[in-house]
Amino acid sequence: MKPSIGVLGGTGPAGSSLGLRYASLGHNVTLGSRDPERAKEFVNTLDLSALTGTLVGGDNLSAAQSEIVVVATPWDGAEATLTSVAQQVQGKIVISMANALYKHGRNMHALTLPRGSVAQHLASCVPGARIVGAFHHAPAKELGDLGSSLHSDILVCSDDSDAIASVIELVNEIPGCRGINAGNISAALAIEAMTAVLINVNIRYKTRTSLSLSGIEAGNK
Amino acid sequence: MKPSIGVLGGTGPAGSSLGLRYASLGHNVTLGSRDPERAKEFVNTLDLSALTGTLVGGDNLSAAQSEIVVVATPWDGAEATLTSVAQQVQGKIVISMANALYKHGRNMHALTLPRGSVAQHLASCVPGARIVGAFHHAPAKELGDLGSSLHSDILVCSDDSDAIASVIELVNEIPGCRGINAGNISAALAIEAMTAVLINVNIRYKTRTSLSLSGIEAGNK
Repeated sequence: MKPSIGVLGGTGPAGSSLGLRYASLGHNVTLGSRDPERAKEFVNTLDLSALTGTLVGGDNLSAAQSEIVVVATPWDGAEATLTSVAQQVQGKIVISMANALYKHGRNMHALTLPRGSVAQHLASCVPGARIVGAFHHAPAKELGDLGSSLHSDILVCSDDSDAIASVIELVNEIPGCRGINAGNISAALAIEAMTAVLINVNIRYKTRTSLSLSGIEAGNK
Repeated sequence: MKPSIGVLGGTGPAGSSLGLRYASLGHNVTLGSRDPERAKEFVNTLDLSALTGTLVGGDNLSAAQSEIVVVATPWDGAEATLTSVAQQVQGKIVISMANALYKHGRNMHALTLPRGSVAQHLASCVPGARIVGAFHHAPAKELGDLGSSLHSDILVCSDDSDAIASVIELVNEIPGCRGINAGNISAALAIEAMTAVLINVNIRYKTRTSLSLSGIEAGNK
């Protein structure tokens, strides 16, 4: 039985794509939203015929009942959303995929948060959760397009090495994705900030770039 | 006639490898050091038989007379070294390849400097220089092993887009390297911090990883 997945802020492009993808891989997924009616309506617009798991909309509290919880809100809503379900996520793996970015002129820039990154900030706000940074660079469009195979190395970081191993397994379920153990949660600073660089590269080169790390043979480490 | 290259802190692994590589590609290279005798002795230990350019050792001031200047000192010596030759580098391309890192336990971590990165810090210290961030992730060993071809995308960032174009050309001279326009110098925060992540991945996976960006067709942009 694959673990259920709840996505906080699950109606945005990143969260909904991730949720849809994992529902297609046999997970039971809840897309959470501040507005549960909106989440339900949103799910009704999706083509669910290819799913081997389930996908439902609900509020963030119901999403937080899942075995694995993903924070996919905008970065500045992540703290409030996660702390509102702090009790529900105690002891659970909580994947932070938010990036703190801002646009200045034509360029995206990374914001440096006082604790370094969104993931580190969440780890300090909800110390009982097993915060893992992952999926920061994953292209939402390809994630949500179930016919499309990704070619992405997904950098996974946490201070909880068992949680890293679990999330790497989860990543490796997605065709074309490979989870890479990026170490300690302090890596989230670099990983989140790199998202701004990749977006700028996408704009400049009119592409949808992905990151690959050469020379890595094994899967989980 | 290829531009001459001077490397400040040129006797360290990164700077000396870069210098040797460019001397092999027809550039006249000066490896600068606080101790010019040490730089000269160091150059005497190298096999210079395959060079089509020249490689000499000297002090940092003589290195700074070159047309392109590279800052390859440890990060905490970069400001003092570059400001000591501020007059010589006015109007020149100055490549910052230093990474502000520290080791804690078994892991490397990125330091966040007040201005974000070493490159941004140098840009504020010597405003007349055309500071470009590049070569942060380039593996020193492969760079200095002239028989070895690299497979690296080198992220190049600066607030001076002409300087980016020139450095991308310089990067593309190295077999297997590809320069990528990573945009504004604010990208240096992510790029420098990512070095810590890549070093940790190298240690964990017992490899020498390089970064690749998929989906990019063109060279210079």
